[in-house]
Amino acid sequence: MPTRRSVFFVSDRTGITVEMLGNSLLTQFDGIEFKRVTMPFIDSIDKAREAKLQISAAFAESGKRPIVFTSQVDEAVRAEMTKVDGLVLDLFERFIVPLEEELGVASAHAIGRSHSAGNFKDYNHRIEAVNYTLAHDDGVTNRNLDQADIILVGVSRSGKTPTCLYMALQFGVKTANYPLIPEDLEAMKLPPALVPLKSKVWGLSIAPDRLHQIRTERKPDSKYASLENCKYEVDAAEKLMTQSGIPFLNSTAKSIEELATHILHEAQLVRRVY
Amino acid sequence: MPTRRSVFFVSDRTGITVEMLGNSLLTQFDGIEFKRVTMPFIDSIDKAREAKLQISAAFAESGKRPIVFTSQVDEAVRAEMTKVDGLVLDLFERFIVPLEEELGVASAHAIGRSHSAGNFKDYNHRIEAVNYTLAHDDGVTNRNLDQADIILVGVSRSGKTPTCLYMALQFGVKTANYPLIPEDLEAMKLPPALVPLKSKVWGLSIAPDRLHQIRTERKPDSKYASLENCKYEVDAAEKLMTQSGIPFLNSTAKSIEELATHILHEAQLVRRVY
Repeated sequence: MPTRRSVFFVSDRTGITVEMLGNSLLTQFDGIEFKRVTMPFIDSIDKAREAKLQISAAFAESGKRPIVFTSQVDEAVRAEMTKVDGLVLDLFERFIVPLEEELGVASAHAIGRSHSAGNFKDYNHRIEAVNYTLAHDDGVTNRNLDQADIILVGVSRSGKTPTCLYMALQFGVKTANYPLIPEDLEAMKLPPALVPLKSKVWGLSIAPDRLHQIRTERKPDSKYASLENCKYEVDAAEKLMTQSGIPFLNSTAKSIEELATHILHEAQLVRRVY
Repeated sequence: MPTRRSVFFVSDRTGITVEMLGNSLLTQFDGIEFKRVTMPFIDSIDKAREAKLQISAAFAESGKRPIVFTSQVDEAVRAEMTKVDGLVLDLFERFIVPLEEELGVASAHAIGRSHSAGNFKDYNHRIEAVNYTLAHDDGVTNRNLDQADIILVGVSRSGKTPTCLYMALQFGVKTANYPLIPEDLEAMKLPPALVPLKSKVWGLSIAPDRLHQIRTERKPDSKYASLENCKYEVDAAEKLMTQSGIPFLNSTAKSIEELATHILHEAQLVRRVY
C-alpha cells in the first residue's frame, strides 16, 4: 500500500499558481499517494486560522505532517500560515525578497494582481481568440480562415479542439481546426482551402490504439472506431502531412499544455495574454 | 519613462509553471516595464548554453541584469543555468530539497512528469468536459442538461463561454451556459428548462458600460449595444437572478481564472483534472 500524505494549496487568490507549482513538484515523488485540498481566497487572519484548523485535523487523523504550498502577500496572514502544523512552503516569501533586492524597489504587497481582469486589452485578445476558435472549430467555415494564427489538422478525435481552445484561452492566439476526412486521405490531398495558408498549418497525430479507444467510447462497434480503420487513417494522415511539408506532433504522449506550448514556440508566435 | 528589465522564463518543459509563478511575482513591482521571453524545452547542456548566450546579450544591450525564472530537474543543466549572468530563481531547487527531507524519499529527478498525458483518466475527463461544454454553449440544446455540473446564465456577452471553457479544460467540469434573453427578462422568469436544475445554476453579471463597450465592438450603433439597453438588461438580469435565488458574480472586475475558481469553490465541486 502506498504511503498517503495530505497536501494543501492555500492562497489569498485563486490558488492556481500554487496548485501548478505544487503539483509539478509532487510528480517527482513516486510511491506516495497525495490527498489534495485547495483553499482559495484565504485573505484574512480569520480565514487563515480556519485553514490552520483544517490542516491540523488532517495531521491528527493521519499522523503525518501535511504539506502546505502557500502564497500569501499579506504579512500578517503569512505569519499566521507559518504557524501551521506542517511543512509550509511559501512561494511569495521565497522569491519576493531576492526580487526586491535585485530591482531596488519594494514590492506592492497587494493582493489580486495576477490573472487580473484589469487589463482590458488582454481580456479582449482572449475573448476574440476564443470566439474565433469556436467559429472555426472542425472546419465549419472557411470564412476569414486567413486570419487564423494557426490552423490545426488531423483525423477526427486526434485532440484538435481542446488544443485549439487552450491556445485561444491561455495565449490569446486565434486558431482554426480542420479535420482530415476519409476523402482527403483517399485523394492524398490537403483540403483545398488550406493550400494557400500552408505556412500556418500544423498537424496532430495519435497512436492508432489510443484513437481506437477514444472513438470506441463515442461510437462502439463502428467501422469509424475499428482498430483497422484507425490504423489506416493515422497512417494515411501522417503520409499526407509529411508529403505536404506540414509539421505534426503526436498527441498520445503529450498533454494539451505541451502540444499548445510546442506549437506556439515552434511557430514563433507571440502570446497576447499574460 | 519606466525602468525596463528583461525577464526570462527557462524551463526543461513547457515553461507554463515558471511563467505563472514569475508573472504573479512580477505584478508586485510597479513602475518597471518587464520584457518577457519564454524559453521552453531547455533540457540539455547545449540548449542551456544557448539560453545563457541570449540572456547575456540582453544584459549587454540593456546594461541591467536580467531576471531568470527557471525550473530544471536535471542537475547538470541546472548547474549550467546558475552560471547565467542574471538573478536566477530556480523553483525546483528551492522546493524539492525540503520536500525530499519531509517525505523521506529521494525525488525522481525526471523531466516531463507534470501536465502529463500519461494519465488517461484525467485526459478523458478533460475531453468529455470540453465536448459537453461545446455542445451546451449558448443554450443550443437542453438535451442531457441534467448532466451538467454547472449551468451558467447571464446576458449576452457577459463572459459565460470563456468561463465555461476554462472550467472544462482546467478542472474537467461539465458546464452548460444559457443566455438570459430579452423575453426572459420581460417575463422575469428563468428559462423553463433551468427551473428543475436551479441548484446547479450560477450567474454572471457585468458593468453596463463594459457590456456596452464589448457589444459595440461586435455590433456598432445597434440597439443591442446601446448603453441604455445594456443598463436595462443588466439591471433586469440581476433582479431576475436575485429573485430566483441564483448566486451571481460580476465579470467586470474578475478574470476568467478567478470566476472559474470562485464557482468551483463555492459550488463545492471537485476538480477532475490535475
